Amino acid sequence: MTRDRGPISLSRGIPPLECIPVDGLSRLTAVIAGTHRDAAFQYAPLGRYPGDPELREQLAVWHAADASGVFVSNGSLQVLDLVAAHLLRGERRIVHVEVPTYDRALGIFSRHGATLSGIPMERDGMDVVALERRVRERTPSFVYTIPDFQNPTGVTMGQAKRQTLVDLAARYGFPVVEDIPYRELRYRGTAVPSLSRIAGDAAVITIGSLTKVLSPGLRIGYAISDADTSLALALLAENTYLSPPPLCQLVAARCLSSGMHHANISRVREILRPRHDAAASVVRRLLGDALIAVPDGGYFLGVHLPWARSEDELVGAARENGVLLTPGSPFLAPDASPPTGTLFVRLPFQALEPSDFAAAVERLAELAQRQRR
Amino acid sequence: MTRDRGPISLSRGIPPLECIPVDGLSRLTAVIAGTHRDAAFQYAPLGRYPGDPELREQLAVWHAADASGVFVSNGSLQVLDLVAAHLLRGERRIVHVEVPTYDRALGIFSRHGATLSGIPMERDGMDVVALERRVRERTPSFVYTIPDFQNPTGVTMGQAKRQTLVDLAARYGFPVVEDIPYRELRYRGTAVPSLSRIAGDAAVITIGSLTKVLSPGLRIGYAISDADTSLALALLAENTYLSPPPLCQLVAARCLSSGMHHANISRVREILRPRHDAAASVVRRLLGDALIAVPDGGYFLGVHLPWARSEDELVGAARENGVLLTPGSPFLAPDASPPTGTLFVRLPFQALEPSDFAAAVERLAELAQRQRR
Repeated sequence: MTRDRGPISLSRGIPPLECIPVDGLSRLTAVIAGTHRDAAFQYAPLGRYPGDPELREQLAVWHAADASGVFVSNGSLQVLDLVAAHLLRGERRIVHVEVPTYDRALGIFSRHGATLSGIPMERDGMDVVALERRVRERTPSFVYTIPDFQNPTGVTMGQAKRQTLVDLAARYGFPVVEDIPYRELRYRGTAVPSLSRIAGDAAVITIGSLTKVLSPGLRIGYAISDADTSLALALLAENTYLSPPPLCQLVAARCLSSGMHHANISRVREILRPRHDAAASVVRRLLGDALIAVPDGGYFLGVHLPWARSEDELVGAARENGVLLTPGSPFLAPDASPPTGTLFVRLPFQALEPSDFAAAVERLAELAQRQRR
Repeated sequence: MTRDRGPISLSRGIPPLECIPVDGLSRLTAVIAGTHRDAAFQYAPLGRYPGDPELREQLAVWHAADASGVFVSNGSLQVLDLVAAHLLRGERRIVHVEVPTYDRALGIFSRHGATLSGIPMERDGMDVVALERRVRERTPSFVYTIPDFQNPTGVTMGQAKRQTLVDLAARYGFPVVEDIPYRELRYRGTAVPSLSRIAGDAAVITIGSLTKVLSPGLRIGYAISDADTSLALALLAENTYLSPPPLCQLVAARCLSSGMHHANISRVREILRPRHDAAASVVRRLLGDALIAVPDGGYFLGVHLPWARSEDELVGAARENGVLLTPGSPFLAPDASPPTGTLFVRLPFQALEPSDFAAAVERLAELAQRQRR
C-alpha cells in the first residue's frame, strides 16, 4: 500500500478511533442519561468525595484492591498533578524519574517545585543500582515509574528490578508512584506483577486510566492507594475543581460492570498486536541496535538514533522527508542525555498501518545513514 | 407547613434539583451521544485547546464577546485556579478581595502563593475608596470580585463603583477578575452592566459557569478575556488535565443553541423569586439592620448577626436548635473581621421552602436575643 496523503505522523500517542467502542459507549450513555438523570446533572455529593461509589467499586474489583483506596479524577494527568501536590510538600522536593520518561509528568513535578533526578533506563527498566546509589545520597519525595510498556521507550520493568525497587522504597521510606496506562495492552508474553501487588511494606500509589483501554473522551483517571491518601487527594480535588462530571463516571462504571471494558481490552490487543509485531520487526531490521527494547505491548518503540547533529536538524530533515517526529529531548530529565552520537526518538506504532510505519522508519534510517557519510 | 424531618440546612449553596432541567438534559445527552460519538469519546484535539468550538461560539454570542477569548474548563473553580496560576507569577503576589468573599477562592489564591488583602464590603459593593488607598500603596496582581449577588453577602456592586474599579484598574495597570455565576439570576430590578462591558482600557477576565443556570453535573465553567489569555489558560490546562470531557461540552453547546439554557434561566427566576422575596422579608423583620443588603437575586442573604460569643458557640447553639449553619469566618480574608459584637452569617435561601427558611431565621433571632440578656 502506498501513501501519498501527506506526511506520516510519528507523533502523539493517542488511541486510533477503531480502538474506542464508540457505538457501545453511545448506547450506554443514552441509557445512563435516562436512568440516572438526577445524579448525572446535579453536583456530586461533596465533603472529600473520592469519586462515584459504583465506579470506585468496579475499579477496585478490576485491580483486586479495596474500594476505600480508589480516587477518581479528570484523567490520569490530573491524578498525577494531585498526587504530586500531595507528596511534594516541605523544603526538600526531589523526584527520581526514569530517563527518558513522560514529558508532561516532568512538567508537573517541576511546577510543584521538585528537583528532578534522572535514573537511566535499561532494556528491563530503570537502573536500580544507580537508583540505590542516588537514594543513599538523599531520600526522594517519591520515585516515579511507568513500569509497563513505558512512554516513551516501550520498556517494561523486569520482576527482579520491581522487587529491588519496592525493597528500596520500604527500606528508605519513600513512596513509589507507578503510572500504568498501558499495562493491559500486552500483545505477547506474560504480565509481570504490578508494583502494588508486591509492595510489601512499601507505599505504592498506582495511577490508572481508562483512556487507552476504553475512551479518552470520558477523561477517567484514578489513583489506587490507601483510604487516607484517597481522602487527601479528594480534598485537594475538591478545592481545585469540586468533582469530575458524574455523567462520565456513571458511564465508565457501567462499561466496567457490563463487561464492555474487559471485551474492549481484548479487541484492542487484537488490533494492535500485528502493528506492534510489524513495527518491532522493521525497526530491528533497519535500525538494529538503536532499538532500546521490543516492548511486547503498549504504543511505543524507543530508539537511540545515530545522529551527530542537532535535534532540530533531525526533526527538520524528517519533516522534509514526509515524517513528523516528536522531539525526544522533552522526555529527558534536565541532568540527562542519550548515548553520545545518538538522539532519543519515540516511535508510536499504534495508529499507523504497518506499511506507513515501515515507510517512516525507512526514511529515518536513510537520514541516519546519509548524515554519517 | 410544619417541618419535623430533622434540622433545617442553611449550609451549602447548591441549586435545588427543580432548577435543573434534567429531563431535557437527559434527552439531549442521548441525542449527542448518538450523533457525535467519535468526538464525544475520543481525545479533544490538543495543542492549546481552549474548548469545544461550538460551545465557545455559543458562549461568545451569549456574552456578546469574541469566541477567540473564550476558554472552557471543568467548572468555574478550575477556571479560577488556572486564572490564579496565570496571574500569580513572579515575586510580589497580592490579591485584593472583597470581605467577605467566596471561601474556596481565598484557598486557591493562598495556594498560589498570594498575600490576601481584604477590602470591606458595603451595601453596594466593595469600598472603592479603601481599594484606591490600598492600590496606591502597592499594585496588586489582580482584584477579585463577585459583582452580582455576591457569595456570601448577596451584595451587587453599583454602577458608580464598577466604573471606579475599572478606572483604577486602567490607571494602575492591574487586571480585574470578575466571577459571575449568579449574574443571570436577577429576580427584581435592572441589571448593572458587567465589568467587562465597561472595561475601557482595563484588563477584565470574566469567569462564568453553567452550574446555577443549567446543570452543576456538566462541570462547565469558562473564562472570557482576550485570545492571548485564553491560549495561555489552555496551555496551563493542557499541562494539568489535557481537556474537559468533550461529551459535556457538546451537550452544553446544544443546550445553548437550542434555547434550553435561556428558557431554564427564566424558569429558575420564577422558582427562586418567591423564595428570595420571602427570605428578604423575614430577615428584615426579625433581624433588621443585621441584614447587609436585599440582594434581588442569587442564592444568598448575608447578615452581621449580633453575637458576642464565639463562632463555634453560635454554630453549636444553632445546631441544638435544629439549624445547620456554615461558619462565616472562612469567608473572611486573614486581615478582616466583622463589626464588633457581630458574626458574619450566610443565609442561602435557594433550596428551602419559605416556611422552613423563616423557621430557621426565627431560631437564629431568638438565639441572638437570648445571649444578649
